[in-house]
Amino acid sequence: MDLDLSLAAPGLTARLVDIESVSGSEGPLADAIEGALRRLPHLDVYRDGNAVVARTRLGRARRVVLAGHIDTVPVAGNLPSRVQDGLLYGCGGSDMKAGVAVQLRLAALAAEPGPDVTYVFYDCEEVEAERNGLLRLSRVRPELLAGDFAVLLEPTGGVVEGGCQGTMRAEIRATGKRAHSARSWLGVNAIHEAGRILDVLRRYRAREPEVDGLTYHEGLNAVGISGGVAGNVIPDECVVTVNFRFAPDRSAADAEAHLREVFAGFEVAVTDAAGGARPGLTDRAAASFLTAMGGTPRAKLGWTDVARFDALGVPAVNYGPGDPQLAHRADEHVPLAAITRCEERMLAWLSG
Amino acid sequence: MDLDLSLAAPGLTARLVDIESVSGSEGPLADAIEGALRRLPHLDVYRDGNAVVARTRLGRARRVVLAGHIDTVPVAGNLPSRVQDGLLYGCGGSDMKAGVAVQLRLAALAAEPGPDVTYVFYDCEEVEAERNGLLRLSRVRPELLAGDFAVLLEPTGGVVEGGCQGTMRAEIRATGKRAHSARSWLGVNAIHEAGRILDVLRRYRAREPEVDGLTYHEGLNAVGISGGVAGNVIPDECVVTVNFRFAPDRSAADAEAHLREVFAGFEVAVTDAAGGARPGLTDRAAASFLTAMGGTPRAKLGWTDVARFDALGVPAVNYGPGDPQLAHRADEHVPLAAITRCEERMLAWLSG
Repeated sequence: MDLDLSLAAPGLTARLVDIESVSGSEGPLADAIEGALRRLPHLDVYRDGNAVVARTRLGRARRVVLAGHIDTVPVAGNLPSRVQDGLLYGCGGSDMKAGVAVQLRLAALAAEPGPDVTYVFYDCEEVEAERNGLLRLSRVRPELLAGDFAVLLEPTGGVVEGGCQGTMRAEIRATGKRAHSARSWLGVNAIHEAGRILDVLRRYRAREPEVDGLTYHEGLNAVGISGGVAGNVIPDECVVTVNFRFAPDRSAADAEAHLREVFAGFEVAVTDAAGGARPGLTDRAAASFLTAMGGTPRAKLGWTDVARFDALGVPAVNYGPGDPQLAHRADEHVPLAAITRCEERMLAWLSG
Repeated sequence: MDLDLSLAAPGLTARLVDIESVSGSEGPLADAIEGALRRLPHLDVYRDGNAVVARTRLGRARRVVLAGHIDTVPVAGNLPSRVQDGLLYGCGGSDMKAGVAVQLRLAALAAEPGPDVTYVFYDCEEVEAERNGLLRLSRVRPELLAGDFAVLLEPTGGVVEGGCQGTMRAEIRATGKRAHSARSWLGVNAIHEAGRILDVLRRYRAREPEVDGLTYHEGLNAVGISGGVAGNVIPDECVVTVNFRFAPDRSAADAEAHLREVFAGFEVAVTDAAGGARPGLTDRAAASFLTAMGGTPRAKLGWTDVARFDALGVPAVNYGPGDPQLAHRADEHVPLAAITRCEERMLAWLSG
């Protein structure tokens, strides 16, 4: 399958949507992207699995990275793409083939950009973290991701979203002593004990710290609770699973220490953790990016792959034409005008 | 298989243990019991499924009912029976073939008892309530269970345990509003809301009321809790399953009204309920029974089949030679001397 990069980004988005690429099956789309990029003499192209990286080699003082995932959630009867009332409908159009189309257009058109540019197209973003193509690249070819500033073209509705918050899940365990429920006073009810864990959560006041000029908003919440042995047994264990969303001024280690302090007296087992990312809006490339895109940047509260760039020392923001509210929905769609606007603004920025 | 009712109760218990009768497979034992009882001319014998009922017809002013289940939990390598150091080992010996042996001996020996006597042998007590043979009899032949006082010969360690407490399970539901956990303030966390249910449980002070001279001890406990949608979702529902054990001065309807009052403001769904039983120790037959057995009676806290007699208007107590702590254990056993003592005392009572 050939990709014609002379198509403007809206038409190119439709082509990309029509090349099905559910996570794990990105091969044909990765081949098409690699083929199109290899036809551009100003780029060096690398392939790793179903990830493709293309880089200018102009010897500029600064390098920016533009990244996007090429996989989608499973198709939900929403292929092939169709256009209606200025909206392009189809699986992955918003999340995030519109962004990928903009990347490809920039790769084709910006032969002499102001900064050097690295274009990253990666696989398996919509599935478990361990399969994530950007994570794999950061392990096997970290030098390919190096830069001074990165933009992830995830759907943000055309607003710059800076950095991202970290996320940590932990199991907080209350214990007791089993007994027959007909003689409950012979036991200690672990579910009742877990009330003290819920007390902590109900009392908790989340911070709203400013980091690099953006205001984040933390949260500490139970996302699961489970306890009980049988209908006639006083239970000896109750586990509350909490999810802590923390601002990028805390590391994952800081976040864990905070959880252990908050739940002092209970067994705390961290089950997964991913650090956040500072927005890096004080970087020069970031500042010119902000000016070019316009609008007021906001803090990204959900965890995204910008954190992988942060881990490599590259500050990063999210910015893309899709609508994040429509991601993963059968009626997913993206306004053609938003794709055009994103393409124009980013091209102006890179050429500036 | 013939049962020789001239054997004293300890030897007869061993015979009964050796006729395997796991719940649902009581046929051979029910046949043996029916056959032995039909050879006793002073009794009318009835058969319903694997339940057998035998009644004297002496026209006495009062009638007592002696009841026991003939099924056991699954055999655990503990058959055939064996005697060691004065203890009879074997599946169901304590729970409750020792009691059944005493019933059979009384049926054979007490040809002219003081009150009329009804002997009830029933199936499927060790499995779900709907299969219980005493429940079935109470529906299809309630007149066979009529009486002024009933003794269930369940293992009580030779102590009279009066009546029983009722039990009710209910699901108390806390609700909220889903949101992504990265923006938790857009939702309402149902697990945190359930903290208020646990507050009620932690504050609850259980009654210890006296009923017919015995002191009961209520309890209201969470026996299960469950909530959570996914690790990144603020949950919109959390369900606490509570078990309310209530003294026999409350009916099941009273108990439900109490739960609804205690959990006012929450959705309360009663999932199962079984009323308790008053001990009826003010009944003349019960008083003479207490005198004959000796010792200090105590309240039965766990729910037992005496409640089925209460539902038919027959006050009832538990009294048997087995050890309730040993029920359902592979090393289940019963002291031969305890069986003899029970047989002697009950025979003296019936003859008095």
